[in-house]
Amino acid sequence: MEYERPQFYHVMQYAADADGDVIDMVSGNPDWEPPAALRDGLREYADADPADFQYPPSEGLVDLRAEIADRRNVDPERVVVTNGTGEANYLAMAGALDRDAGDEVLLTDPVYPYYPGKASMLGAETTLVPTERDGSLDPERFREAASDDTALIVVNTPNNPTGTVYDRETMRALADLAEEVDATLLADEVYDHFDFTGGFESALTLDSDRTIVTTGYSKSMAITGFRVGYAVFPEDLVGSAKTRHMLVNVATSRPAQYAVLRALRGTDADYYAGARELLSQRVETFTDALDAAGAEYTSPDGAFYVLARFDGFPGTMANAERLVDEAGVAGMPGETFGTTRSEWLRFALVTPRVEEAAARLTDYFG
Amino acid sequence: MEYERPQFYHVMQYAADADGDVIDMVSGNPDWEPPAALRDGLREYADADPADFQYPPSEGLVDLRAEIADRRNVDPERVVVTNGTGEANYLAMAGALDRDAGDEVLLTDPVYPYYPGKASMLGAETTLVPTERDGSLDPERFREAASDDTALIVVNTPNNPTGTVYDRETMRALADLAEEVDATLLADEVYDHFDFTGGFESALTLDSDRTIVTTGYSKSMAITGFRVGYAVFPEDLVGSAKTRHMLVNVATSRPAQYAVLRALRGTDADYYAGARELLSQRVETFTDALDAAGAEYTSPDGAFYVLARFDGFPGTMANAERLVDEAGVAGMPGETFGTTRSEWLRFALVTPRVEEAAARLTDYFG
Repeated sequence: MEYERPQFYHVMQYAADADGDVIDMVSGNPDWEPPAALRDGLREYADADPADFQYPPSEGLVDLRAEIADRRNVDPERVVVTNGTGEANYLAMAGALDRDAGDEVLLTDPVYPYYPGKASMLGAETTLVPTERDGSLDPERFREAASDDTALIVVNTPNNPTGTVYDRETMRALADLAEEVDATLLADEVYDHFDFTGGFESALTLDSDRTIVTTGYSKSMAITGFRVGYAVFPEDLVGSAKTRHMLVNVATSRPAQYAVLRALRGTDADYYAGARELLSQRVETFTDALDAAGAEYTSPDGAFYVLARFDGFPGTMANAERLVDEAGVAGMPGETFGTTRSEWLRFALVTPRVEEAAARLTDYFG
Repeated sequence: MEYERPQFYHVMQYAADADGDVIDMVSGNPDWEPPAALRDGLREYADADPADFQYPPSEGLVDLRAEIADRRNVDPERVVVTNGTGEANYLAMAGALDRDAGDEVLLTDPVYPYYPGKASMLGAETTLVPTERDGSLDPERFREAASDDTALIVVNTPNNPTGTVYDRETMRALADLAEEVDATLLADEVYDHFDFTGGFESALTLDSDRTIVTTGYSKSMAITGFRVGYAVFPEDLVGSAKTRHMLVNVATSRPAQYAVLRALRGTDADYYAGARELLSQRVETFTDALDAAGAEYTSPDGAFYVLARFDGFPGTMANAERLVDEAGVAGMPGETFGTTRSEWLRFALVTPRVEEAAARLTDYFG
């Protein structure tokens, strides 16, 4: 086995095993309430007919796919409901590689570690393409890195870990590049509801037949444990994705699909705006403290992570463990996200204790 | 893509689109009530703390794995909770092939079509080994078929579609063969609760470090839509299986895991015995009618399928469609299960209308 487990669980376990009180800023678990309609959906489902407890259609509940297709303005046939965005990304990457268009996957650096993990599992080679210090992505760098062997370009926007929202021009250039080199562009948009700029546009609007868009409800509905996501495929890739989904998982868990559908229909914009506002405030609180601690940091345009660089304290696993032991704050070492952020640490702001964590970091580094 | 979608959905769709009333004997969906404790579990979970809606441990809820390990008398570390038995089989097959012990998978003939589908998806070659007309399996045939390239032997017991329960001696011989040729034995025991003989023994009791056992709750708790199953791996294969599970699915849906744990703890033996008794009666009703129709058939020792052969009416897709249109009964064509049962049709007894279906078949063929 040449592929590796992502290191998130290692740091979480280290923090859980620590003696003192540790604030978890590792996991990407929202800490707020799921939509009320989601809980209602579970209650309704608990009383459903036994027939409703049996296999849903493999590609997802008919009503859920229709609801998604309607909201995203796409043909329902292009939608596959998956076991979270994780499976959606797996299907997308496998589909792009199964085309026999090459064995190489271009990834951003820094990179969300599941992407290279999946690529290696699928037998692909990965090439990391550096993004800029401000988090932005220069499509020219991808053009230079691309070759005949390039089958797939993967980007995550809003981005984990940089918080950057790639603009439409950038995404258009990547989609064009994919078309030119006979590759596929995968846009993972799982943080699409956490755009602080108001300017985020989904890659679906590019209307490119070489672009796959994935997302899910884990973050937007605060239900990472439910495992409901989806992918929107170009027409010529959706058939093989449905087959792989069927052969790997048969279908996505039905109670979770039902509850998500109920929540989609019964949740208004205030719910999502409330979470965004909460996160905006946390970003401000946390980055103020980083200023006080003399750290360099990224100010996210979206998602819910902040990268911070403390002089003389590079983002190694050893330092992440030291921060747990000595400051009582658990963050992810930047070295686990590729090569360009090895001096940095990533902090997830999905804890009510952001202010206290910020104070601990200020004390420790200030 | 060289792998194909299993044909179940085609027949179900054909039956659903038919003009007249059609009795569905295609799908393997139990038609009885799930355990009451399962519904209670869903209700409890609907009121849970938001933290309980977040990622469970990737390999499964701690308490669920402990409960399974305790019941199966294995180390919890060997248990991976999966998105149904389907994912468990996928992980098991991928793990056996990732060992670089060969590219060939030995399957029984007749065969559950998902196995060759998964094998092809994973890049393996498949060899079908015929079982006997009475459903039994002669390990010598597998020994003759095995070669240096054999990486995996897959059997399903109680068997779909034959209903045969392989005895301990047979399974021992297959496990020994796997050890001799440096291969892995996968025993899919998803029908383990539907053993009419009382003699079924899990392959776990063989205590072979070359055997993987998979099963799930889809059939035993009448919840095919929940997607909760598990695999018990030998120690040296469990690590890579956990990694693949994480990279493909991250985790198994948590509300479903929670409800299954609650049902495991809160359901007594009468529930399972009741379903077995119901199925036994249906087998008798159905096979009596097949006698009246002059058909040859298998009398299942387990699972809930009957294979029937009608003279001059081979088990082709065209004939399965004809039976839908002309008799109002939907069954699976034997030709979709390999080569040895191409004269047969498979009928699933998980419908309250078994008696009426039997009468229709008697009328049509009698």
